[in-house]
Amino acid sequence: MVKRIDSVKNPQVKMWKKLHTKKERDKTGLFLIEGYHLVEEALRTKQVVKELIVSENVDIPSAWNVDNVSITIVSDEIMKMISDTETPQGIAALCYQQHNELPADAQKVLLLDSIQDPGNLGTIIRTADAAGVQLVVVGTGSVDLYNSKVIRSTQGAIFHLPITKGNLQDIIPVLKEQGVPIYGTSLENGRPYTEVPPVGSFVLLVGNEGNGVEEQLLAQTNENLYIPIYGKSESLNVAVATGILLYYLRGM
Amino acid sequence: MVKRIDSVKNPQVKMWKKLHTKKERDKTGLFLIEGYHLVEEALRTKQVVKELIVSENVDIPSAWNVDNVSITIVSDEIMKMISDTETPQGIAALCYQQHNELPADAQKVLLLDSIQDPGNLGTIIRTADAAGVQLVVVGTGSVDLYNSKVIRSTQGAIFHLPITKGNLQDIIPVLKEQGVPIYGTSLENGRPYTEVPPVGSFVLLVGNEGNGVEEQLLAQTNENLYIPIYGKSESLNVAVATGILLYYLRGM
Repeated sequence: MVKRIDSVKNPQVKMWKKLHTKKERDKTGLFLIEGYHLVEEALRTKQVVKELIVSENVDIPSAWNVDNVSITIVSDEIMKMISDTETPQGIAALCYQQHNELPADAQKVLLLDSIQDPGNLGTIIRTADAAGVQLVVVGTGSVDLYNSKVIRSTQGAIFHLPITKGNLQDIIPVLKEQGVPIYGTSLENGRPYTEVPPVGSFVLLVGNEGNGVEEQLLAQTNENLYIPIYGKSESLNVAVATGILLYYLRGM
Repeated sequence: MVKRIDSVKNPQVKMWKKLHTKKERDKTGLFLIEGYHLVEEALRTKQVVKELIVSENVDIPSAWNVDNVSITIVSDEIMKMISDTETPQGIAALCYQQHNELPADAQKVLLLDSIQDPGNLGTIIRTADAAGVQLVVVGTGSVDLYNSKVIRSTQGAIFHLPITKGNLQDIIPVLKEQGVPIYGTSLENGRPYTEVPPVGSFVLLVGNEGNGVEEQLLAQTNENLYIPIYGKSESLNVAVATGILLYYLRGM
């Protein structure tokens, strides 16, 4: 199904443009991605792409399977309007947001408390995917998961692993009942991470760039871990710390 | 020694402003930092700060030791001109670039081949400091170490550990003679990193975000390692990967 939009005043164009705001994304349950790599990754994922948006002078790569995908051809002007990059690649897609349930037998789960920087959140998701995490829960208070910078930083990992938004206060007790150890991260009152065995099954909880994980959440974990600092830096970047802990805890 | 500059046409102001270009930084051997945190870290480091630059309405924190530091008071207008942030904190410093020799007994050295992204380079330096690395060598072909985004991302670590620029082709043979194992990183023809023992003494070589470490350099190492990818991501962010490897190799 291919249609064409030429008018910048078309209501669909206005809606796409508005998807750069969290408000519109929340209202519609949709988000916009752009660029060949991300769109390709989205197309590989079942039932994610609602609509492919293509500039009039751009060809859809022949290797892509777009048989059952709605396609809208737009002018370069429209593409520029809906893009948030300076030189759009001319290919974008409207996608459905994910909603995933907690697995009944969580083995490797990552909980994120109030991550503020879009680049950090995206890199954490990319890292979690690489480390074989089964579910990422983005806690309320974090930057919006469907922010375009977050999505870019995931390098497509947002389409590779189950992710959901949720209230960590409610989710931790549910995970705890499953008997998998829940490890918080905290510079105070924690143990060096290497003191716990890399058992492969875990829930890891990491937190805000400046303040770390909220006290109330730390009180609910089985143990709180820290990564020793051997130099004079005060802390590690949260995505780097998450990578070190995930790769350690998963074992070999 | 306190002086005051009010004219935006003052040659010193012009020079400070020019320090946002690599060319001027290379020519002068100087670089400019701004903001309380970075300036405080710089002042704690011997013989780094050439001159403190302070807005007329800003007070130097009383806890800072500025006894032997040249201070220049400037108008807000000048501060705004030389700053690259939208709302300058009103405090900046002119600093000398570092030049460090290779240690005669390298224990933990990090070599960086063509890191392009300033945020990545800064985060890698911050991570290296945290992991107790003794020397970071920024290879030719990397983004300039004294780029303001790099410095911000180090969060001050640029003042905490010895860093130098250099040609890795020449440096690797010198380090090799010291008998410390040199580990490159490569997705192809490498071994999983967990197969080498975490001996504590090592030279780690990481590379460009897209292309990894150059072949010619990989050919000179003792072994090349990779971090297994358990999900569908193609790779890890280079700063995250560096964190995982440094913390693994240093041992506990």
